Amino acid sequence: MEPLMPQMMRAVNFAAVKHKMQRRKDMEETPYINHPIGVAYILTEEGDITDPVVIKAALLHDTIEDTDTSLEEIKKNFGEKVAAVVAEVTDDKSKPSAQRKQAQIDHAPYASHEAKLVKLADKLYNLRDLKRTTPTDWSEERVQQYFVWASKVVHGLRGTNKMLEQKLDELFQARNVKV
Amino acid sequence: MEPLMPQMMRAVNFAAVKHKMQRRKDMEETPYINHPIGVAYILTEEGDITDPVVIKAALLHDTIEDTDTSLEEIKKNFGEKVAAVVAEVTDDKSKPSAQRKQAQIDHAPYASHEAKLVKLADKLYNLRDLKRTTPTDWSEERVQQYFVWASKVVHGLRGTNKMLEQKLDELFQARNVKV
Ligand SMILES: [Mn+2]
Ligand SMILES: [Mn+2]
Repeated sequence: MEPLMPQMMRAVNFAAVKHKMQRRKDMEETPYINHPIGVAYILTEEGDITDPVVIKAALLHDTIEDTDTSLEEIKKNFGEKVAAVVAEVTDDKSKPSAQRKQAQIDHAPYASHEAKLVKLADKLYNLRDLKRTTPTDWSEERVQQYFVWASKVVHGLRGTNKMLEQKLDELFQARNVKV
Repeated sequence: MEPLMPQMMRAVNFAAVKHKMQRRKDMEETPYINHPIGVAYILTEEGDITDPVVIKAALLHDTIEDTDTSLEEIKKNFGEKVAAVVAEVTDDKSKPSAQRKQAQIDHAPYASHEAKLVKLADKLYNLRDLKRTTPTDWSEERVQQYFVWASKVVHGLRGTNKMLEQKLDELFQARNVKV
């Protein structure tokens, strides 16, 4: 089998190139790639996860949803397993936003263990980001609604990783969102 | 010893956070982090390098030179070996640009094997980038002078990695720069 190092650098570089034109919604216009890297980092550093399938999927988790990347491309470059997890965490952008948000709540309990891990770390990153800085065009109420929605998604992901779930719960509680 | 995965994600994330406000000089204002990631990727993909010290140093190679990162911080987070390589590839920004450029030519032959690898991949990335797109404020002549200067640095790095040196030579020859 190929050593881990080239596999990982290929996933990091692929995501960085694909997200290159994209920025986060904060005032500093942080490069978007900092998000998938941060999600992978939460998994290794705080979730104690070392499974290459999970970490690669975390690095690639927004490429299909937000860039011109196809599922075929992920399959070809990173294999069936990684592609399956990325597909699981990809929202169907042909649907209106409200429907996509409801779908995340509905589908969370049926996701694979690997996809649940990526979703937990994704939510943790995004909630911390919202706590740090409000997106340029978001009201305080919209931020609060995002926390409430996220808590419903996380409800369906429980029993996956104690450490990540605990850190999410602390964020919800600080906002008086019931968990 | 700690598994490779958290070590690598820590280096990638550290670099991404440190370079977050920085952009490349191309018209698209590519996030700067794409460069150190691309340098690490050249080493694994084209140079066949898997040594974690070299790949971490590649990911971190511009943090001291271009961000508020101190050598102590690199030492504390990534150990003495990685810090030593990063220090070797860091230009002394208290010196004027012409002196720094000459210092790179002069010091190249005495760099460690690890630092030579990072320097080769760094030059290869930057020359490809110049070939792809001219920085917003660079004249065609300045680009040519950069190629000539880079060929002099690479001269002092030879005998380190055949594949990377060959690819650099092809770029120099295409520009009629003698190697
Ligand atoms: Mn995401
Ligand atoms: Mn560089």
